[in-house]
Amino acid sequence: MNVIIDLCVIPMGVGLSVSPYVAACQKVLEEAGLEHRMHAYGTNVEGEWDAVFAAVKRCHEAVHEMGAPRINTTIKVGTRIDREQTMQDKIDSVERKLCE
Amino acid sequence: MNVIIDLCVIPMGVGLSVSPYVAACQKVLEEAGLEHRMHAYGTNVEGEWDAVFAAVKRCHEAVHEMGAPRINTTIKVGTRIDREQTMQDKIDSVERKLCE
Amino acid sequence: MNVIIDLCVIPMGVGLSVSPYVAACQKVLEEAGLEHRMHAYGTNVEGEWDAVFAAVKRCHEAVHEMGAPRINTTIKVGTRIDREQTMQDKIDSVERKLCE
Amino acid sequence: MNVIIDLCVIPMGVGLSVSPYVAACQKVLEEAGLEHRMHAYGTNVEGEWDAVFAAVKRCHEAVHEMGAPRINTTIKVGTRIDREQTMQDKIDSVERKLCE
Repeated sequence: MNVIIDLCVIPMGVGLSVSPYVAACQKVLEEAGLEHRMHAYGTNVEGEWDAVFAAVKRCHEAVHEMGAPRINTTIKVGTRIDREQTMQDKIDSVERKLCE
Repeated sequence: MNVIIDLCVIPMGVGLSVSPYVAACQKVLEEAGLEHRMHAYGTNVEGEWDAVFAAVKRCHEAVHEMGAPRINTTIKVGTRIDREQTMQDKIDSVERKLCE
Repeated sequence: MNVIIDLCVIPMGVGLSVSPYVAACQKVLEEAGLEHRMHAYGTNVEGEWDAVFAAVKRCHEAVHEMGAPRINTTIKVGTRIDREQTMQDKIDSVERKLCE
Repeated sequence: MNVIIDLCVIPMGVGLSVSPYVAACQKVLEEAGLEHRMHAYGTNVEGEWDAVFAAVKRCHEAVHEMGAPRINTTIKVGTRIDREQTMQDKIDSVERKLCE
């Protein structure tokens, strides 16, 4: 089962600068070989369910290992069985409507 | 690694009544033996990371098997390594502050 | 337009104990006279759109006034124009399915 | 109070193709003159609190007017009073860490 998620990992108890932790998660996604694109409020990730959620778990482990005692993550998860759809397909689909 | 999540599974392309699908997810959580409590906008679930996310995957599978072609889920995920905390602890902690 | 939201306000840069801030938000909702119910990962709130979102803004203001330099909030927002539905209706609707 | 939000509006009861509704929300944000950037799972929007949430309300109104009887929206909301930060600042901040 393929999945597109939007992942936003927020470490707590580490002060205000969360960018080193977000960067660590980007590296986890990179090493997992998963297609991913960061935006200002999270990262879109696409891939096979088990591979994607294994990477999410590794993000939590990595951020805890960096010293964050507590983590609050939000994940949006989309699956569909009617047809294949990539992250780019979703964006293209809206942009076509905007041009009509 | 223990986790407390808030799970909100929304089937798409099945009309307006989503309660049969939410009920199916409740049964999945029940069968998984995971502590869980439904509220008006999702379900709090607590347990070991792998058990909890295996149940989330089974929810998606169950809802697709019931005929939903597309699913949009939102998950909040909390982990902490400084101390143990249950769902009830979190609520108690706020309620104590309200009584101060 | 009536709305049911799920509100989860997370202060950052204040250490690990967020319960005083969550309790402050509960008081804001109380003072606003909005129907609300806390769970382990947020608070369900129902009411008229403008009243509900005015309260959300006051929560951010109150939490900043308590000293939190940064806040990360997640809100789920449900509206429907086909029929009226309360928070309790949503729960009842799933529970009926569970008993079938 | 300035805010950066991530907005994901999901119409229900309209079948599987939600792109016309997402496109309508893009137009609302455009007309509101708010800085916004779409990604595969929502749209980042930045601006003054009242202007941003007035636009969110207009999105719900527009999507209902197009015929969607029910809407499920997820909003992430970030405010900070320690310093100014744009959507692009957030991305730059992570990318600098990735290059270290």
